[in-house]
Amino acid sequence: MQLRFARRISKTKKSFVREIFKFLGDPEMISFSGGFPNPDSFPVDGIKEAAIKVLEADGANALQYSSSEGYLPLRQYISKRYQKRFGLVVDPSEILICNGSQQAFDLIAKVFLEVNDTIVIEYPAYLGALQSFGFYEPSYKEVKLTSSGLDLKQLEEALKDNPKLMYVVPNFQNPTGTTLPVERRKELIEIADRYGVPIIEDDPYGQLRYEGDHLPAVELLDSQMRVQNGSYTGNVIYLSTFSKILAPGLRLAWVIAPKDVISKLALAKQGVDLHTSTFNQIVAHEVGQHGFIDRHVKVIQRVYHERRDAMLESLEEHMPEGVTWTHPEGGLFLWLRLPEQVNATSMLQEAIEEKVAYVPGEFFHPLGDGQNTMRLNFSYCNPEKINEGINRLAKAIKRKLVL
Amino acid sequence: MQLRFARRISKTKKSFVREIFKFLGDPEMISFSGGFPNPDSFPVDGIKEAAIKVLEADGANALQYSSSEGYLPLRQYISKRYQKRFGLVVDPSEILICNGSQQAFDLIAKVFLEVNDTIVIEYPAYLGALQSFGFYEPSYKEVKLTSSGLDLKQLEEALKDNPKLMYVVPNFQNPTGTTLPVERRKELIEIADRYGVPIIEDDPYGQLRYEGDHLPAVELLDSQMRVQNGSYTGNVIYLSTFSKILAPGLRLAWVIAPKDVISKLALAKQGVDLHTSTFNQIVAHEVGQHGFIDRHVKVIQRVYHERRDAMLESLEEHMPEGVTWTHPEGGLFLWLRLPEQVNATSMLQEAIEEKVAYVPGEFFHPLGDGQNTMRLNFSYCNPEKINEGINRLAKAIKRKLVL
Repeated sequence: MQLRFARRISKTKKSFVREIFKFLGDPEMISFSGGFPNPDSFPVDGIKEAAIKVLEADGANALQYSSSEGYLPLRQYISKRYQKRFGLVVDPSEILICNGSQQAFDLIAKVFLEVNDTIVIEYPAYLGALQSFGFYEPSYKEVKLTSSGLDLKQLEEALKDNPKLMYVVPNFQNPTGTTLPVERRKELIEIADRYGVPIIEDDPYGQLRYEGDHLPAVELLDSQMRVQNGSYTGNVIYLSTFSKILAPGLRLAWVIAPKDVISKLALAKQGVDLHTSTFNQIVAHEVGQHGFIDRHVKVIQRVYHERRDAMLESLEEHMPEGVTWTHPEGGLFLWLRLPEQVNATSMLQEAIEEKVAYVPGEFFHPLGDGQNTMRLNFSYCNPEKINEGINRLAKAIKRKLVL
Repeated sequence: MQLRFARRISKTKKSFVREIFKFLGDPEMISFSGGFPNPDSFPVDGIKEAAIKVLEADGANALQYSSSEGYLPLRQYISKRYQKRFGLVVDPSEILICNGSQQAFDLIAKVFLEVNDTIVIEYPAYLGALQSFGFYEPSYKEVKLTSSGLDLKQLEEALKDNPKLMYVVPNFQNPTGTTLPVERRKELIEIADRYGVPIIEDDPYGQLRYEGDHLPAVELLDSQMRVQNGSYTGNVIYLSTFSKILAPGLRLAWVIAPKDVISKLALAKQGVDLHTSTFNQIVAHEVGQHGFIDRHVKVIQRVYHERRDAMLESLEEHMPEGVTWTHPEGGLFLWLRLPEQVNATSMLQEAIEEKVAYVPGEFFHPLGDGQNTMRLNFSYCNPEKINEGINRLAKAIKRKLVL
C-alpha cells in the first residue's frame, strides 16, 4: 500500500502518557502517571444490577441504534441533577452525550476550527485536549497559570488577537491541580464576552473536592448573566464526564452548550460514530436512579482525600530541599517542581528502573519548556503505595542533585 | 456566543436517513428506511449472561481505561474467527476496534485525506460513509454500479486521476443490494494495485447471505496475492462490525489493515476518544466464546432470508408495471426503480401519510440524480408488516402513475 498519509497525522506524535501506560503491566510498578481513577471505587455491583435490569426490562431497545444527541432520559437525568445540586438550569436539548470528554474535544474542534485558527490555552495545559485539537492544525496562544489560576492580564492580551476558542480547566486543573477563584471566573466571563471568544470549560473533577467550598462553574456564572441580561446568549461550552464519578471504561461524558452549538456537535457526531453506545447510556441512567451517584461521589471523595493527604505527607517527608509542589483542593493530580538543573524527562528512565512512574511536565508545555516539572496522580494508588512511590521518586531526584 | 463555525460543518447537511428515524416513534408506521437489524434477533440473554460473568470475574478491569487499539483478547478472537471461517490469516496487531464502522470511516479519513483529495466511490453510494468523509472536504469520483457490481472500465478511468482512496461495498451493497462477482474482485485488486490506490472494503453484511455461495472478501484475495508475492504489501483496508451479527447498540466494529495503517488509525483514535468502551469489548468477547456468534449468525440468516423472500413476493404481488427491483443474495436492502416520471423524494411525504417509510434514492446520489429510486430495508419488519407496507407503498406509487 502506498502510504500517503495526511499532513495532520504525519505531524502528530504518539501520546507520551499512553506510552507510559505500557509499563503499568509490571505489578511492582507504582504509577503516578495516568489519570486513572481508583478501580476499587468502581461501583461494580451497581453497574451489574443496572445491566441486568435494563436487559430484562427492555433489552432489545438497549441494544438497538439510538440518537446522535444521546439517550433522552439520561440527558434529562443530567439536567435535573445540575438543577438540584448546583442550581444550573439546563434543558436536555442543550446536552449532548459523547464517548468521554476526549470525543467532546474532537467534536468541538470539528465544528469550530479551521487550519491555523488560534485557541487560547492555559500554560501548562492538558495534553489530551491538545492532542484532539492538534488534528485540526490550530495555533495556540498560551496564558500562564499562576498558583491562583489563569493570569487574566495575559489572557486579555491573547484575546485581542481574535482567537476562535479558549480552553480552561477551572477546577483542580490538569496538570497543575490549581483552581480558579470565583472572582477570576467572573472576570474571565466578562473578558471572553468582550472579545467574543467562546470558553470551553472542561470540568471532569469539579465534584471531587476534598477541602474548601464548592465553587460555581463558569457555566453557572455565565447562566446567571443570561438571567440578568436576556439578550446575552451565553458564551460557555461546558464538559463533564462519568469517567471520574462512575467508571471511565463506559466512555460516557456530556457537553452543555447553547442549542445552536449542540445541534452542530450532534451533526458532527452523526458523521464520526452515529451515536454513543445505547446500552452504556441506559445502564448509566439506571445506575443514576435513587441518588446512587451522589452517594457514590461521597465515597470517592473520602478515598481520594485520604490519598491526596498521603501524597502531601509523603512529599513533606521524603523530598529534598528545592523541590516544591501544589496543594490541590480536589481532583486527581498535583504538580511537582524540581530544582532547575533536574530534567524530569530524562530522569523518567531511572525512575522506571526504581519502579515508579510519572508524567514529565514537558509534555504539558507545547513551547518546549517545563523540563524541571512533573505531574503526579494520587487517585490510583493506595496510601501505602503512595508513600513508597514518593520515597522511590525522592531517591531518584536526590541522585540527580548529587551529580 | 459568536457562532463562527468551521466551513466543513457549515457545508454539511443533517443526515436525511436519521431525520426519517423521527417518524418511527409512530407504532402504525411500517419502516423500510433504516438499516436497523431486527431487534427480536438480538441475543439479549447471551449479552446479559456475558455482562454478569465479566463484571463478577473482573469488574474493575472491565470498567477501567484501556488501549486505543482495542481489547487484545477481542482482537485475538476476531483474528482466529477469520482464520477458521474464511482462511484469512490476520495478526491481532493488524486489527483495530472502533465504535461502529462509522468511526472507521472518520478515522480513515483523518489519517489519509487532505482537502480536495479524491475518493473513488460506487454510484449510488452508502451515504453514511460519504457523511464521514465529507467533513474532510474531499472530491468524489463516481463509478457506476451495474447489476453485477462496479463498472471496471469506468473504475480504471477514475484511478488515472490519482485519487487517494477507493470505497467499495462488495457484498449486498448499501443501497442497491448488488454483489461484486469474484472475478471482478480480482480485477479490482489488480487495477487498484496498478494505480497505487488503497481499497476501503466495507463488509458489514458479508455473513448475511441467504442464497448462493459465500464469496471471498477482497481482503482475502489481496492476502492471497501477498502470499504469492512476498514483496506485495497488501492494498486493502477492510471493515466489518458486530452491529449486524450481534447488536448495533454496543457500537463495536473493527478495521483490518497493514500494521503501518493500524498504528496511524490508533493514533487518530487516541485523539478522537482514547478508546472504545472497555466494558462492551469484554462483553462482546465473552459472548463470542463457545461458537455463540456462528450459531447466532445462522439464526439471523434464517429470519432475514424469510423477510427478503417476503419482500420480493410482496413486490411481485403489489407493484404496478414499470417498477423494477434488485434481487439481493444477502444483506439488508433492496433497490427499487420507479418509472422516470415518479419522484421518490417528493412522494415520501405521501408515503408517510400512508404509514410507510423508505429512503429516497436521491440521497445516495451525490450528483443529484436518482430521483426515481428508493432503498428498502427488509430486516426490520416481520413478513406480515412487509406485505402490508409494500401494499401501502404500491398504492402511493400507483396514485403517482395515474396523475
